[in-house]
Amino acid sequence: MLDHQPVINHNLTPDVDPQWTHEPNCEHCSGCDSEISVAKADLEAFVVGVLEKHGVGRAEGEVVARVLVSSDLRGIPSHGVARLGRYLAGIGTGFIVPGVEPEVVEPVPAIAVIDAKNGLGQVVSELAMDLAIAKAKTNGIGMVTVKNSNHYGIAGYYALKALDQRMIGVSMTNAAPLVVPTFGRQVMFGTNPIAFAAPASNHPGFMLDTATSVVPRGKLEVYDRNRTQMPPGWAMDQDGYDALNPGLVLRNLVERAGGGILPLGGRGELHSGYKGYGLAVMVDVLCGVLSGAAYGPFVYDMKRNEQKTGVAAPNVGHFFMAIDIERFMPLDEFEARMAEYIDVLRDGEKALDQERIYVHGEKEFEKAACHAKCGVPLAKNVFENLCTIAKQCGHAAPVTRA
Amino acid sequence: MLDHQPVINHNLTPDVDPQWTHEPNCEHCSGCDSEISVAKADLEAFVVGVLEKHGVGRAEGEVVARVLVSSDLRGIPSHGVARLGRYLAGIGTGFIVPGVEPEVVEPVPAIAVIDAKNGLGQVVSELAMDLAIAKAKTNGIGMVTVKNSNHYGIAGYYALKALDQRMIGVSMTNAAPLVVPTFGRQVMFGTNPIAFAAPASNHPGFMLDTATSVVPRGKLEVYDRNRTQMPPGWAMDQDGYDALNPGLVLRNLVERAGGGILPLGGRGELHSGYKGYGLAVMVDVLCGVLSGAAYGPFVYDMKRNEQKTGVAAPNVGHFFMAIDIERFMPLDEFEARMAEYIDVLRDGEKALDQERIYVHGEKEFEKAACHAKCGVPLAKNVFENLCTIAKQCGHAAPVTRA
Repeated sequence: MLDHQPVINHNLTPDVDPQWTHEPNCEHCSGCDSEISVAKADLEAFVVGVLEKHGVGRAEGEVVARVLVSSDLRGIPSHGVARLGRYLAGIGTGFIVPGVEPEVVEPVPAIAVIDAKNGLGQVVSELAMDLAIAKAKTNGIGMVTVKNSNHYGIAGYYALKALDQRMIGVSMTNAAPLVVPTFGRQVMFGTNPIAFAAPASNHPGFMLDTATSVVPRGKLEVYDRNRTQMPPGWAMDQDGYDALNPGLVLRNLVERAGGGILPLGGRGELHSGYKGYGLAVMVDVLCGVLSGAAYGPFVYDMKRNEQKTGVAAPNVGHFFMAIDIERFMPLDEFEARMAEYIDVLRDGEKALDQERIYVHGEKEFEKAACHAKCGVPLAKNVFENLCTIAKQCGHAAPVTRA
Repeated sequence: MLDHQPVINHNLTPDVDPQWTHEPNCEHCSGCDSEISVAKADLEAFVVGVLEKHGVGRAEGEVVARVLVSSDLRGIPSHGVARLGRYLAGIGTGFIVPGVEPEVVEPVPAIAVIDAKNGLGQVVSELAMDLAIAKAKTNGIGMVTVKNSNHYGIAGYYALKALDQRMIGVSMTNAAPLVVPTFGRQVMFGTNPIAFAAPASNHPGFMLDTATSVVPRGKLEVYDRNRTQMPPGWAMDQDGYDALNPGLVLRNLVERAGGGILPLGGRGELHSGYKGYGLAVMVDVLCGVLSGAAYGPFVYDMKRNEQKTGVAAPNVGHFFMAIDIERFMPLDEFEARMAEYIDVLRDGEKALDQERIYVHGEKEFEKAACHAKCGVPLAKNVFENLCTIAKQCGHAAPVTRA
């Protein structure tokens, strides 16, 4: 498939320091002094090549590579090329089906309802966001839901596609259940992220990309690897107490033994954990219930989804929206207002010994500019994993930078 | 004004136990054993009467009364009739202007952009949400922004109007600055709530209505009144430390001395306070920046707003959206899926000694049913304040129930 010509977001995947950003600022980039780094183009080519070895056509592979590498580029390795192995496993098992033709229904001009037919999450999602943007250009607003999909990578990638068109973009997805509701101790929904982007003059833009849980699973994995105790308020043990042992929580998640990650706001009501819980369900109503996908604890419930749809697949659901700012006010005016807002936030008085107030996306835009120049840093275990993948399918290992 | 016939939401303001809810369950209603309670109709009539004494036409007064009383009815007194005095003050000062005609521009069918002309927040917002619903019926989705508005009461009221039409409803507003950004110690935005409602069969529906701050200002006021220490993580003192003294924070807010309420997720990065901060700004981008209203620290900045718009007014902004579910799937199917989701959440294993997992809105629907039958409870100081207001304008005091 991939008849449609994807709109490629240059903000997201800068080849060199792009016009909208500051000079690469390696001082604020913890990653570019990494032992191992790979040039962006080489890393993308590697992902495309490996996917080709697994039967994924070049055009689809390029979309997946772009989304994965954009995450590493922006300093979010949890959703980057480290995921490649899981996608290959999904293709091997058969619940990710490359080359399918998504079914797009457009009941009214502002809306589309897509059945991804268990294709690659990134491929259908790029198509869906491009469609939302096109719809917004005509109708002021465009909204697209997707069902029968797979992991789509980093939520922010799709929202940034709208930003690249100087529009407001929204991207959400449901996900494998890892989070417990307030007063519960069974995982009932995923880390269900909300990504929201809006353009600003003299700034790369406002770019929120946030899980509705207090932390992502990846953070527990890092703590577990480093044998570090978690603070109370991140996760719950099998009985409902705060868990401080990251390995215990991760094992319980795998075994569905009870407990899991806490919603934003933490355990119980004291710090309003029911707010994160509610936001996660809100995301799932739009991504899962409304789209026709699985929802809540049924995402990645292969058996149930097979009964419901005939295919043993995760049935992940996504939601995309674009808003054409020019229908509301002149675009330059909006961007100037955003810039004023960002400046006033950044220029506010700092707490304690803080030197800087960040606006959402700022760190990531800086890292992207830096990594586009200095190379995409890879953790040792991620790089080794890529080398193993390469060996297994007869592809050359990624070329590291000198 | 008020040419348009508002769609009155009976779910929101039940006269008697409505068909969609359980029997009134006074056990779960902490309020109906209140010393003072007033019948819903009597409380609404009181608000209308007092507003009339202050030059507000009956039709407009009825909207304000309905929104305020719906909040008390649902057990959220912070946004109920306790606010009446502030509205009267706003009318007296001249920044709330009853009887104005909002200017409605519809650049494309799915969208409207409204200038509230500093009218009553509830009046323009009921009009705006009704318009979003009408647009959704035709276009699948309807989105309406409002600028030059005032406090609109409880966010959830408007989302519930969509639920009453078996649609998905979204309502957001910006608000007076009370919340500090991560690493900052100056208030930069309001408690900027997100309300989201979706219908479900056999349930009153899913109804999230949440500030993006960890707590609302009203909670600090309650703690201050009761001389109770706050837990760390709710508010920040003038220097950037966790504040445990609610009175100190409230005084600092009034004097703009530094510090304020923390975003959802708390202080710093440990529990992801930047997520609540980002969600608050997201709400403000839609309600403030996009609508043409004030945003961030400029909401309720009368001097600046006078320079910008010629009127010394708060220039609050709102955002409303409705989604017509039937464009996506049969309505009964959606509602059955929602019901299954709600049931699976509620039926999950409970943490520690918890007996019940709540779904958002559940407590409030129960209270509304109870209070519609047993009377709307009022705190003693709120009731006394209403009596003072009545006396001052020559209106009879509210009639309490025996």
